[in-house]
Amino acid sequence: MTEQTTPSTPSYSSSLVSSLEAISNRLRRHSIVSTSEAGSGHPSTCLSCADLVAALFFHALRFEVANPENPFNDRFVLSKGHGVPAVWAAWAEAGAFAVEELMNLRKIDSPLEGHPTPRSPWADVATGSLGQGLSIGLGMAISAKMDRLDSRVYVLMGDGELAEGSVWEAAMLASHRNVDNLVGILDINRFGQSQGTMYGDDVELYARRFQSFGWETEIVDGHDMVQIVTALDRAISHQKTPYAIVADTLKGKGVSFMEDRDGWHGKPVSQGAMLEQALSEIGNNPEPREQLTLHSPSKRSFAIGTASSMPAPKFPANTHLATRQAYGKALVALGQVNPRVVVLDGDTKNSTYSQEFLKEFPERFVECFIAEQNMIGAAVGLSAMGKIPFASSFACFLTRACDQIRMGAVSQTNVKLCGSHCGVSIGPDGPSQMGLEDIAMMRALPGSTVVYPSDAVSAHWLVGLAAKTDGIVYIRTSRPKTSLVYNNETEFQIGGSHVLRSSDRDRATLVSAGVTLHEALRSAEILAEKEIPVRVIDLYSVKPVDEGTLRQAAEETGLVITIEDHYPEGGLGEAVLTALANTNCRYHRIAVTGLPRSGPGNELLRKFGLDTASITETVERLL
Amino acid sequence: MTEQTTPSTPSYSSSLVSSLEAISNRLRRHSIVSTSEAGSGHPSTCLSCADLVAALFFHALRFEVANPENPFNDRFVLSKGHGVPAVWAAWAEAGAFAVEELMNLRKIDSPLEGHPTPRSPWADVATGSLGQGLSIGLGMAISAKMDRLDSRVYVLMGDGELAEGSVWEAAMLASHRNVDNLVGILDINRFGQSQGTMYGDDVELYARRFQSFGWETEIVDGHDMVQIVTALDRAISHQKTPYAIVADTLKGKGVSFMEDRDGWHGKPVSQGAMLEQALSEIGNNPEPREQLTLHSPSKRSFAIGTASSMPAPKFPANTHLATRQAYGKALVALGQVNPRVVVLDGDTKNSTYSQEFLKEFPERFVECFIAEQNMIGAAVGLSAMGKIPFASSFACFLTRACDQIRMGAVSQTNVKLCGSHCGVSIGPDGPSQMGLEDIAMMRALPGSTVVYPSDAVSAHWLVGLAAKTDGIVYIRTSRPKTSLVYNNETEFQIGGSHVLRSSDRDRATLVSAGVTLHEALRSAEILAEKEIPVRVIDLYSVKPVDEGTLRQAAEETGLVITIEDHYPEGGLGEAVLTALANTNCRYHRIAVTGLPRSGPGNELLRKFGLDTASITETVERLL
Repeated sequence: MTEQTTPSTPSYSSSLVSSLEAISNRLRRHSIVSTSEAGSGHPSTCLSCADLVAALFFHALRFEVANPENPFNDRFVLSKGHGVPAVWAAWAEAGAFAVEELMNLRKIDSPLEGHPTPRSPWADVATGSLGQGLSIGLGMAISAKMDRLDSRVYVLMGDGELAEGSVWEAAMLASHRNVDNLVGILDINRFGQSQGTMYGDDVELYARRFQSFGWETEIVDGHDMVQIVTALDRAISHQKTPYAIVADTLKGKGVSFMEDRDGWHGKPVSQGAMLEQALSEIGNNPEPREQLTLHSPSKRSFAIGTASSMPAPKFPANTHLATRQAYGKALVALGQVNPRVVVLDGDTKNSTYSQEFLKEFPERFVECFIAEQNMIGAAVGLSAMGKIPFASSFACFLTRACDQIRMGAVSQTNVKLCGSHCGVSIGPDGPSQMGLEDIAMMRALPGSTVVYPSDAVSAHWLVGLAAKTDGIVYIRTSRPKTSLVYNNETEFQIGGSHVLRSSDRDRATLVSAGVTLHEALRSAEILAEKEIPVRVIDLYSVKPVDEGTLRQAAEETGLVITIEDHYPEGGLGEAVLTALANTNCRYHRIAVTGLPRSGPGNELLRKFGLDTASITETVERLL
Repeated sequence: MTEQTTPSTPSYSSSLVSSLEAISNRLRRHSIVSTSEAGSGHPSTCLSCADLVAALFFHALRFEVANPENPFNDRFVLSKGHGVPAVWAAWAEAGAFAVEELMNLRKIDSPLEGHPTPRSPWADVATGSLGQGLSIGLGMAISAKMDRLDSRVYVLMGDGELAEGSVWEAAMLASHRNVDNLVGILDINRFGQSQGTMYGDDVELYARRFQSFGWETEIVDGHDMVQIVTALDRAISHQKTPYAIVADTLKGKGVSFMEDRDGWHGKPVSQGAMLEQALSEIGNNPEPREQLTLHSPSKRSFAIGTASSMPAPKFPANTHLATRQAYGKALVALGQVNPRVVVLDGDTKNSTYSQEFLKEFPERFVECFIAEQNMIGAAVGLSAMGKIPFASSFACFLTRACDQIRMGAVSQTNVKLCGSHCGVSIGPDGPSQMGLEDIAMMRALPGSTVVYPSDAVSAHWLVGLAAKTDGIVYIRTSRPKTSLVYNNETEFQIGGSHVLRSSDRDRATLVSAGVTLHEALRSAEILAEKEIPVRVIDLYSVKPVDEGTLRQAAEETGLVITIEDHYPEGGLGEAVLTALANTNCRYHRIAVTGLPRSGPGNELLRKFGLDTASITETVERLL
């Protein structure tokens, strides 16, 4: 536990303090006016953090406003995303855009959305689902340390969101890794959305908690500018642990009918008399005589190196390797040609095989322990700093971070996800360990890509394509070892597929990927011996899906059967069915139609009709 | 912070201690033999917790083995689910089933699965996704307090899973609510799956953390039986806060080649010489002379009261009410006729309108603050105690608990979920607050039910049906106010739909639910004026889906158009497409085909083609 010290207070010039106080009042006015104009929003939460934001931006932050892409810029993450009107106001005051723009808050053509999104260059990431900002900031801070940048990362959190476990996951890893370029600012205004928080204004309690999680902490009056700047300066010079500034604040500070009152969450001040009263109580701070400026970052340019293409793998023809193992090998090959690639895992690296990357590039690997939410949040932060993060766990455990992944899509993040141990084919560990809804979850992300390798070669190339494909890419790997389907030079593309068996007499088409593709191929052989030729398509790209090849197969064979080690809903089958809409063909789906159980993988495949014999029977029955 | 006291140690008879030690060694032998026979499993983690399990079961637990349904039984949750061979062994030794059954561990026809599932009556819930057990135990403990039972709940956790934030969410709420019938037992064996944990054997650190989260704590040597039973007795008598026993243990304890060594996670001992060595080192404790028994619970019977049917609502014909508001009213009506119904919310109760239930039945409401994972875990625990929990938040924030919901399905839980604020129709708060993947997530749960009301009447009856329908039921509610579609007496059924407009000349069928159903109805009116009759189906039951009505409409009208305020993948459209497979009809989907943004709800509906004018245009274009 770090000791709570009683720090001495340095002296600051009264002009600095009064200048910051004037800015914070301007932020208050902007927040009230812009939400009032929008007719919705959260002015009360802006008022509680206005002093903190003013001090942070105009005293601590080093940021080149003319160049928000400068890698040496400090970073700011607004974890309490609903407070964004105060932050848009701070950027406007800093010269990022015209103050008049603030009046477009929440309009359908404005980048100033109701919660931060990177549609504005002044938000690196989207927030608004609470409790995610500290993980993102942690990822940014780790990225800066990896690159030996001197950037610091500030995360402003509300007290309500400290009930989210993800905050504590991030707090743990930050202190465990001695991430001392990360500063958390806690706006303790004692109100959540629907009632008071658990702990009211007990700032000592929050400080104790962060201390017990290995942080240095400092309690301040969140409306006393001297205390705030003092704490920020101390946070900046502090080393070896992350630093939390615990600020005792009042929600609605400065407006009598709102200040420290419940029932004002998410309510704008109505135009007219109320608005006038609010603005008059805050007072009319004059516009600054000259454009306010932020401190400059230490440098401007930084080269991480350039990427080249992955060479072809050299798997011998008799290779027998699980796609999860091939994923590990592919990460190493990718890491060798692309310095931006970093890898994260949640204490499953010996199962997902991301440990191969750790062995080769320990400085580019982040062990996140058993905390998937923080792992994904950190990956989003790493992505925001220009990295290409690959984060892996069992496919089923990625559901733990479903909200972080959802928000990653809103952040337009460039995170790659690998879920291993998909489906019932994992066998005796049982249903809690089986990823059976992962395709549904990943398909439903706007702009996402979903790939599903079936052998070592396709795993290799799909990992390479993932790195080159913008946005969230999900790679679904399997536990059992499989033989090679492809030679090392085979080409793959996002949105593609491979027709592995085909004739002009085909009476049905089997569409699959992963271990069940191998069952389908064996079934096709047996059927061929029975004079029933069937086509087999490896649908390695589940989203986007190769509509052309599928529709052609449907038209030519008249019957399409999808086979997937996944629940029926939202998976490969529904992707194919969507692609086949308005074709005139019969369709049949084989999937995991019920809650599976422990048992040998092959017996479970049989139980759900996914093994060679069952597929063969199904085809014969349908013809 | 609670003080770490130095408690005095009471004396226990040497026969008790040696008897418990003998049992723990039998649990060790069973764990090693059963996983060795299965060829997979986690013996090393069983060995670290064997002494804790033996003491807990045969000294502390009050449980009527002949009647596992006795509501007065104490409850045990194995949060570290992979340690289940030791727990199955304890139940066998307690007479729950024959010891020989243990040799069927992980076989496809055995209820003794690789991780706990309620296929065995000796597991109330499924575990195996780490960090969820404390939330479940908290729900059970809250349920016991609600019913004034004297049952205590014990949760055994590993140290690796303490990195999961959900543990800390549960720890917070447990102390906040003074849940003193909850005992956490921490098995600190210092190893995770792929490497050491963050904190090794620093048991003091874990104790400090739980103290800072408001728990009383006690550190013990997890292999010293006197210390363990002493701590259990103290935990039992302790009042006002939950109690954590922090046990310093050795993974693999008792087997030299495994003890305190990394690399033994999830590996069985191979048959033959290694197995012989392991068993010989543990020693051959004789079978007990008579059947071991657990302590008896205080009572056997408890009546919570019986449920009757909800009366029809009395909405005036001109009612203009959001389905989220109607949800709140329906909860109150349901609570009045069903004493098993309890309600949970995550600080969104003034948005989901679950606050209506709080006002009426405060003692049956659990405010979970902003911690959705713990909310769902607690709901699963409440369900395991016989309650019918309704848990609500914004639809998008239920994704935060996706893994808990997934595991709830494996637990065959009876939890009802309500996600409000679905879709782009919420407007200016922006994409972070819009539930657009919730149908995909909820459909992909085995055995789940998904309903989607469009007016106050259907919301009323669907809430009633949810309570009567076993398993997970998801209710999707909307933010905007809508007029009535139905009269108060209309009947609804799971798997049903209502054809709202129909003629034998219909040229297309519009299928929708929620706010877009109202757009579809208005479009149908406009089209009717243009002499283009179209059918309109309210698909209020998205899963199961009314295949018969949909197929009939497809055949009779030749063109089906689905309209959903949801992303295209896994939603209402794919459910309909699946139902229409192998019919000869044209199909078109209108959905949210891209990342939305802040803006007025009606403008966003238009942007994605979901409003009346766009639907009308689409129909005309397709005909």
